[in-house]
Amino acid sequence: MFGTQLENVRKTIPLVHNITNYVTVNDCANILIACGASPIMSDEIEDVKEITAICTALNINIGTLNQRTIPAMFEAGKISNHYGHPIVLDPVGAGASSYRTHITKKLIEEINFSVIRGNISEIKAIAVGSDTTKGVDANKGDTVTSDNMDSVVAFAKEFSQKVGAVIAITGAIDIVADSQKAYIIMNGHPMMSKISGTGCMLSAITAAYIGANQDNIIEACAAAVCAMGLCGERAFAKLKKDEGNLTYKNRIFDEIFHLTPDILEAGARYEVC
Amino acid sequence: MFGTQLENVRKTIPLVHNITNYVTVNDCANILIACGASPIMSDEIEDVKEITAICTALNINIGTLNQRTIPAMFEAGKISNHYGHPIVLDPVGAGASSYRTHITKKLIEEINFSVIRGNISEIKAIAVGSDTTKGVDANKGDTVTSDNMDSVVAFAKEFSQKVGAVIAITGAIDIVADSQKAYIIMNGHPMMSKISGTGCMLSAITAAYIGANQDNIIEACAAAVCAMGLCGERAFAKLKKDEGNLTYKNRIFDEIFHLTPDILEAGARYEVC
Amino acid sequence: MFGTQLENVRKTIPLVHNITNYVTVNDCANILIACGASPIMSDEIEDVKEITAICTALNINIGTLNQRTIPAMFEAGKISNHYGHPIVLDPVGAGASSYRTHITKKLIEEINFSVIRGNISEIKAIAVGSDTTKGVDANKGDTVTSDNMDSVVAFAKEFSQKVGAVIAITGAIDIVADSQKAYIIMNGHPMMSKISGTGCMLSAITAAYIGANQDNIIEACAAAVCAMGLCGERAFAKLKKDEGNLTYKNRIFDEIFHLTPDILEAGARYEVC
Repeated sequence: MFGTQLENVRKTIPLVHNITNYVTVNDCANILIACGASPIMSDEIEDVKEITAICTALNINIGTLNQRTIPAMFEAGKISNHYGHPIVLDPVGAGASSYRTHITKKLIEEINFSVIRGNISEIKAIAVGSDTTKGVDANKGDTVTSDNMDSVVAFAKEFSQKVGAVIAITGAIDIVADSQKAYIIMNGHPMMSKISGTGCMLSAITAAYIGANQDNIIEACAAAVCAMGLCGERAFAKLKKDEGNLTYKNRIFDEIFHLTPDILEAGARYEVC
Repeated sequence: MFGTQLENVRKTIPLVHNITNYVTVNDCANILIACGASPIMSDEIEDVKEITAICTALNINIGTLNQRTIPAMFEAGKISNHYGHPIVLDPVGAGASSYRTHITKKLIEEINFSVIRGNISEIKAIAVGSDTTKGVDANKGDTVTSDNMDSVVAFAKEFSQKVGAVIAITGAIDIVADSQKAYIIMNGHPMMSKISGTGCMLSAITAAYIGANQDNIIEACAAAVCAMGLCGERAFAKLKKDEGNLTYKNRIFDEIFHLTPDILEAGARYEVC
Repeated sequence: MFGTQLENVRKTIPLVHNITNYVTVNDCANILIACGASPIMSDEIEDVKEITAICTALNINIGTLNQRTIPAMFEAGKISNHYGHPIVLDPVGAGASSYRTHITKKLIEEINFSVIRGNISEIKAIAVGSDTTKGVDANKGDTVTSDNMDSVVAFAKEFSQKVGAVIAITGAIDIVADSQKAYIIMNGHPMMSKISGTGCMLSAITAAYIGANQDNIIEACAAAVCAMGLCGERAFAKLKKDEGNLTYKNRIFDEIFHLTPDILEAGARYEVC
């Protein structure tokens, strides 16, 4: 089914406004192009009003949030809501500092997000106030496994209902849930955790997918998650013995660039529950 | 002819001060080194005075302009003018927001630029007030073709006369014009548009070329445009079937790194009119 | 001996807080992962207090310092001192502007650094007030050679005694000194100077190494310097004829990623004096 979602990205070339961290911003730009979308970055409050207005979707990532860019996030979010543009929130490091957790909660209060994507520790931090996030990585104690799967799915559905956004919890197993149903996605490769920013990149392409598939946010989000994971697998299969994490990153982009609807359909591994 | 311009870059290793966006800044740094120059980045107003003074050329790129860095752009521009250093302006996204268009116009009013380089929509936005820019990409309706070539060349010459800078309009066909003559450059490959920041990188190396060839700005600029386009072609020729945009980017840098005067002379494709 | 230091990084996965420039920040993040550590970036003063508290080590790099981030550097430094976390200072461009030199000196006055790592011109600028730094590169007149080695080693030891930090002067020959002894390190390859940020990357992994080896700062720092240089050599050995600086960068990361204690032990080339 996800082939259609990808096709729509390639057909409509959604323009995605990103207010994102300066660590992985170049990767977000290039992966948006690779997946078929077009990126623009702007975090100046005087500029975002018009930039976000001409875009199809917005991607807010708090990875290097600061007092100058936070007001731009709120402004862009409100304008996107006004125009009905879908928005992704990536609460990088929520739970690692109370500042990040606080800003994330305020963003969720004041803006209607279409998708909130994070690792399990980040999502728990904003949903239940835990503070187990290890820097920008999930805490091992929080890992989603087949044992705690049912409770994590229930938690995701409940949190989705509360905030009105699709919740994407990504890690070794990914969960994409709204209040009614959840995709449990098995795509991906452990080597993806050896690259800085695979989460940020996924949030960026999720914005592209939901921008191009606005009447079907949860499927679009699940398609993006499968696409990223599948390309992680395919890139790893081509990795030579002495190649490490930076060459692996290049190969993931190359796979995203060449991904076709057929390859995505054939490779997506998920269950719906 | 352009071999000499490249030789001068490699001989003099111009130090280029960049006030540029945080999206493609690393690419600007590495492509400056690849072409034979040396980069420095500084956007703090208290720091730029001395930094720009010790440099050979300045590259101002408004891709992620903000209230903190804009005053530094004006300051660095004025000091470069004071010392007679050549300056490139890259008005990223001019026409996409009135803020970007406004700041660009004010920069052009207050600073004497040697080269203004942008896509056709950006240049039209600042020259005639159109607002057709699609994010950071040119609008398809603005594309330079053999049909509208004469009028675009006339427009570029006229705008050059008005602002006193060489105008470089880059896209599938590139035009580099002063008030008297224009280079129409055919180098390049469509795949270059699949990388974020080929324009930014070109502006950076243009600053290096004009820094090393200060008595011949238009030829230096045309040489930089040919060099970038030619390396885009040569990189594509080596691209394997399953390689995508990030590997392509690596290969462009590799070609810029190994470009020799002879290869540039042999590969440059342009007309003068 | 340095195998142990590397092993400790891989075993303890130190979380490294980076306040660094936006030019090479992505490389710092990915090389930290490649070497076995975990990166987090935060430069907002309201955020750094808690972020630096949960980290193992801090890396302060002034490459694109500005009025917003400088107070965050001081804050993070003081908190790291409070917790006894080791800190690296990378005074990028000290000597190229009086602003950079001044901020660096103030940082050294107010914060106890474990390691100060820079090129010879930067270190001389902060130690003796020279201003020979050529942008972000060392001045050729300052180069460490076998002829001036003894005096540079004596200078490094003296400066180390004065400021209480290990001094790492890196270039074609690297010197890592405390007040008592110095490592003279021969690893590395000239091609490393053709990549933007090898110094920044080295500072980042130095923070990881000293974070994982807190009772032996000088050996940890020397191990990091050998590791980076050795991987530069190994990456160059695999570089194909038409590959340039960006592919070379990828290969360095791949080597850092696959570096083992045995390879490091066998390849480290240094003398102690």
